[in-house]
Amino acid sequence: MEFSSKLLENAVYEMSQLPGIGKRTALRLVLHLLRQPETQTQHLVKALGTLREDVKFCKKCHSISDVEICDICSNPNRIQDIVCVVEDIRDVMAIESTGQYRGLYHVLGGKISPMDGIGPQDLKIHTLVEKVKSGQVNELIFALSATMEGDTTNFYIYKQLEGVEVKIATIARGIGVNDELEYADEVTLGRSIINRIPFENALKSS
Amino acid sequence: MEFSSKLLENAVYEMSQLPGIGKRTALRLVLHLLRQPETQTQHLVKALGTLREDVKFCKKCHSISDVEICDICSNPNRIQDIVCVVEDIRDVMAIESTGQYRGLYHVLGGKISPMDGIGPQDLKIHTLVEKVKSGQVNELIFALSATMEGDTTNFYIYKQLEGVEVKIATIARGIGVNDELEYADEVTLGRSIINRIPFENALKSS
Ligand SMILES: [Zn+2]
Ligand SMILES: [Zn+2]
Repeated sequence: MEFSSKLLENAVYEMSQLPGIGKRTALRLVLHLLRQPETQTQHLVKALGTLREDVKFCKKCHSISDVEICDICSNPNRIQDIVCVVEDIRDVMAIESTGQYRGLYHVLGGKISPMDGIGPQDLKIHTLVEKVKSGQVNELIFALSATMEGDTTNFYIYKQLEGVEVKIATIARGIGVNDELEYADEVTLGRSIINRIPFENALKSS
Repeated sequence: MEFSSKLLENAVYEMSQLPGIGKRTALRLVLHLLRQPETQTQHLVKALGTLREDVKFCKKCHSISDVEICDICSNPNRIQDIVCVVEDIRDVMAIESTGQYRGLYHVLGGKISPMDGIGPQDLKIHTLVEKVKSGQVNELIFALSATMEGDTTNFYIYKQLEGVEVKIATIARGIGVNDELEYADEVTLGRSIINRIPFENALKSS
């Protein structure tokens, strides 16, 4: 692509660094912004810049939050000793929208994936293990996606907790085996939480 | 969608104002930025902000340019009295990449589309008509997309130039009738410029 403007070329390049946004799409998006009032670009730029600068992660569950302890962790009406382990905040949002879950969360920040160079030390696994070992947790619910990476992560955490007194369950896999959690419909996902099974049973059946 | 962070919600909202970017995609893109080094967001934000603030449009052809008169308009080796009329800068880029065209351009900024509330006064038609009437142009080549709006725009300009001495051609429609110009392959598009036909012939055949 030959650009007549370095400014345009640069904007398109940066936009095309986003996942799933090719050069043509990036150009289309940038030209759209140029046709809109300048305020639209200003708002976008400000929102992204402010988020990236000021983003906080809840000290307890590692979810994105504007305060030190997120609304879920600081809510006394949530069941305090059940913790649902998820990959990222989208999964928290998906489970919250079912209205079926009243416990807390722990956001790992991804799953173990040697192919992508993501090991246990890159995830919030250590703080989860500490949390459980300190005796605050009665039940852990794995809600990672049903992929090889999700299974590997579940198993890694399970092994770290050997000998520790805690119930470990995984959500019932009513959701498609290779589906991402966040795309599951609310009813299915809600039911899969209610019908969670002990992790050891899941190990046997796989 | 329930967000645990206003900052996150706001960033996702602004991102989802872009065409073709739904809320879920916007969330995915924003979370991606959060996982990348802060510099990536800074570069994106700076590139978009600078472009929107400093963007210039060539005083002659209305294409996006970093200087007052763009590289094409100021190139003495381009044929000065042939002008190709296009919708936007993507079409200039597509035609330039064929290497088949040596004349100048005129970027309308869109096409007449009553459905979208775009009339002749919203496009750079007036300056084109003036340019032709001043006698600088020997041949005009319409290279708008072959849609009803493209045809309407061609015809409107054609009527504005009645009685003015100028050859008016349209690019040969080797490209699919409902295809956008920018997606045509280079060979087809290059050929359609070489095989351009007098606009009056095109009128008769449609
Ligand atoms: Zn929290
Ligand atoms: Zn120009």
